[in-house]
Amino acid sequence: MNPRNQSIPSPAVRRLSVYLRRLEYLAAQGVEKVSSRSLAESLRLADAQVRKDLAYFGQFGRPGVGYLVGPLVEELRRILGTDKIWPVVLVGSGDLGRALLRYKGFRRRGFDLVAAFDVSPAVVGRTIGGVPVLHVRQLPAVVAKHGVKLGIVAVPTDAAQDVADMLQAAGVRGILNFAPTVLHAAAEASVRPVDLAAELEQLSFRVGRE
Amino acid sequence: MNPRNQSIPSPAVRRLSVYLRRLEYLAAQGVEKVSSRSLAESLRLADAQVRKDLAYFGQFGRPGVGYLVGPLVEELRRILGTDKIWPVVLVGSGDLGRALLRYKGFRRRGFDLVAAFDVSPAVVGRTIGGVPVLHVRQLPAVVAKHGVKLGIVAVPTDAAQDVADMLQAAGVRGILNFAPTVLHAAAEASVRPVDLAAELEQLSFRVGRE
Repeated sequence: MNPRNQSIPSPAVRRLSVYLRRLEYLAAQGVEKVSSRSLAESLRLADAQVRKDLAYFGQFGRPGVGYLVGPLVEELRRILGTDKIWPVVLVGSGDLGRALLRYKGFRRRGFDLVAAFDVSPAVVGRTIGGVPVLHVRQLPAVVAKHGVKLGIVAVPTDAAQDVADMLQAAGVRGILNFAPTVLHAAAEASVRPVDLAAELEQLSFRVGRE
Repeated sequence: MNPRNQSIPSPAVRRLSVYLRRLEYLAAQGVEKVSSRSLAESLRLADAQVRKDLAYFGQFGRPGVGYLVGPLVEELRRILGTDKIWPVVLVGSGDLGRALLRYKGFRRRGFDLVAAFDVSPAVVGRTIGGVPVLHVRQLPAVVAKHGVKLGIVAVPTDAAQDVADMLQAAGVRGILNFAPTVLHAAAEASVRPVDLAAELEQLSFRVGRE
């Protein structure tokens, strides 16, 4: 990983996505300029936080003018890498995998699901959400052919580490893990866990203690 | 909110879900006891972190024995509130909403989707993933009838705040927000944002800077 990454706190990078969502919304509304204060207020953040986060990446605002929405959207996409299309593969076409294949939100943000993989004869050969489901033995060839760097793991716990290892061996460097287990990754790869039911659990914890 | 909540750091509560997943997995494998060290290693956490997190909630481990898996699973479920079934409503049956309705992972963890709501005549009256889709005007009555405290927002950005307000007015106290916008909630309510595409964006940021 480039040492430049080390100096930028992960929460700041996380907030870039939040800023981008808000700026895209403003752009769609025809808004051309926004102050850091107004942007911060709409996101319930401190003015100084917004300015500090963006300052990690450059000098975007102008005193008395604020941020130009369109150019800042482009700049944030460039920083986050979504100014281009990323081919993505998904492994596991069970209940959750199928839901993700049918979800169009990834494509809208520049992530193109090029193929899904499974081992079950019941599903291999089918097309779900417009995405072909292939046998997992074809994974290395597909990843190589499309230069895939991002993968989604949606297999059961028992298979998740093997799948993560296979993805990394094939060249995938970023893994979004929906399996309810902690994946060990090589130093040069990133794993982000997503556990939808655990998000509800966090809410039931808070609400249950009221 | 109970002041007890204030003293427990959110990351510790977040990790409870991670511990619970791992312990449920071990229980399914027939494992009866686990040391804090072994639990920590499998989750890539520090031994002391695991012990400290669990100590917020009680004295669970025994010197020389470790944790008893079954009882600790029960205890963590009780703490997180998932020792009982939570009725949940979902608003918005677009692409993402439908995917969530078809996802069975919520129910497996104690969250029962009792109804979905929409305004589109094309979808109101249908059943998706076994869940009836009702007109949003029925939301207050359904929330009251089932004593619903948790809601999922899967509507477009423009409608999200109105839906959150409606849920809270009806008595919902915890909201899982899939709309790509920041929701403002009353002090007694909790909102957790989930942005699946933003998770991929965080990976494309890391991978793009390698």
